[in-house]
Amino acid sequence: MKIYIIGIGLIGGSMALDIKTLYPDATVYGIDSNETHLQEALDLGVVDAGAQIDNLSDADFVILSVPVDVALTLLPKVLDAIGDNSIVFEVGSTKAPICEAVTNHPKRRNFIATHPIAGTEFSGPSAAIKGLFEGKTNIICEVERTAFKLQEKALELFKAIGMRIRYMDPKAHDKHIAYVSHLSHISAFMLGKTVINKEKHEQDIFDMAGSGFESTVRLAKSSPAMWTPIFKQNKVQVIETLEEYISNLTQFKDLLIKEDYNAIFEEMESVNRIKEILNGMNVKK
Amino acid sequence: MKIYIIGIGLIGGSMALDIKTLYPDATVYGIDSNETHLQEALDLGVVDAGAQIDNLSDADFVILSVPVDVALTLLPKVLDAIGDNSIVFEVGSTKAPICEAVTNHPKRRNFIATHPIAGTEFSGPSAAIKGLFEGKTNIICEVERTAFKLQEKALELFKAIGMRIRYMDPKAHDKHIAYVSHLSHISAFMLGKTVINKEKHEQDIFDMAGSGFESTVRLAKSSPAMWTPIFKQNKVQVIETLEEYISNLTQFKDLLIKEDYNAIFEEMESVNRIKEILNGMNVKK
Repeated sequence: MKIYIIGIGLIGGSMALDIKTLYPDATVYGIDSNETHLQEALDLGVVDAGAQIDNLSDADFVILSVPVDVALTLLPKVLDAIGDNSIVFEVGSTKAPICEAVTNHPKRRNFIATHPIAGTEFSGPSAAIKGLFEGKTNIICEVERTAFKLQEKALELFKAIGMRIRYMDPKAHDKHIAYVSHLSHISAFMLGKTVINKEKHEQDIFDMAGSGFESTVRLAKSSPAMWTPIFKQNKVQVIETLEEYISNLTQFKDLLIKEDYNAIFEEMESVNRIKEILNGMNVKK
Repeated sequence: MKIYIIGIGLIGGSMALDIKTLYPDATVYGIDSNETHLQEALDLGVVDAGAQIDNLSDADFVILSVPVDVALTLLPKVLDAIGDNSIVFEVGSTKAPICEAVTNHPKRRNFIATHPIAGTEFSGPSAAIKGLFEGKTNIICEVERTAFKLQEKALELFKAIGMRIRYMDPKAHDKHIAYVSHLSHISAFMLGKTVINKEKHEQDIFDMAGSGFESTVRLAKSSPAMWTPIFKQNKVQVIETLEEYISNLTQFKDLLIKEDYNAIFEEMESVNRIKEILNGMNVKK
């Protein structure tokens, strides 16, 4: 089995590690425009050898795990280069633009649009970890547009690495993910900015910040190169989530100004059921 | 050694557990207006026996770990009840109001104002955990107003449970903590509210939310009974942090509307140094 991974970062690299464990006979090839990353992936044993887009004709799987703007231009070229039995999947955090980009491609049926809801705030080949996808959800969009035999092949791999499958329309995906992922990133980045700007003497942050701040701001470590094109592609939905978030924060601030502490208590109490929601998430991990 | 803990929740209960481990001869008494909590603390072995405020005259240590509004009225009564060699400390997340409340109390020198920067999003006696304070910072305010011998006694205990000490003015404490703790809580509560309000079908949240959302929203599980009086007491500072946070979010939204993706990239990149700040925190844990 020949697997090509284009973009060997956190997601692509972690998939490579799981595949190498599950399928010892598989050869995993890495393709990366960043020579240093490719060399690092080879040194770490994340991939077995380097390759080029031209080599894809004999691929069983091609995993496209690059920033979402790069994916838009690269996926058509990848589909041009693969063989009839190759299955390509792309793993970005927006799904409508990529589905649209290949909607009329003659090899559309060799492509499956996915979003594995897994990751950390780190990036690059050294961020790759085994078992990252165990118990996580993989959202598959427009599944009916992928050839049935190739769907089966892809599903077998997703299940082997431990993922739960959920099917969604690409636009619904992009709308929902703006709330549960994209907004969290902006909220963390702007929290980090607010605190950094205020605290001229960083030692104050070091000493007074506890695990609560650390948890809330964690996503502000994420890669701007990865996230800028996500916000660009999902602009309309992200702006909507930001407007609602800002409106809720402003309302909370106004309650403080009015000193309506009963309402503040009730606001927090009504959000407390996030406990059950998060527990529901954890049960399924 | 006799230790009285008033309010046996996460902080008081965790202190009790550490004290019982470090000083096997100590007797830890629990005082709690909530009978169920007191019984739970007894059943869990967090405290050895129940007690009343009237019993405090022979106390070596009194730990006041109640919501900050309750502390304001309770601390003067506690100081009235203790003996000359007792040392009382209070552990709330605001320090100026409590210092002010006892500034002219005849037993002011038996009180030490502290804020252990430690905790989780859980509350009640069952949330108590051993070793919670290991490597964490304890902020002490107005240390010069505590009798020197009693300072020494308190510091010995704080060091025994593994805490690093930092001295601060109460007003500076309240200003800084608004940024690194209080704002994080509001940001998490309002993120939770925004997502819950939007997602009528909760299954969508369950399935699509990953560890990033979970981390960012974690503090929204916190107790409204604990946090409402904190926001009330630190109202002016908290409103200021909220205004800056809302302004930063609005500016980010405006960059998206203007499609200025270079500026968005730079915004995120400049906040990325939160990595080093958080690493700095972790080094000291």
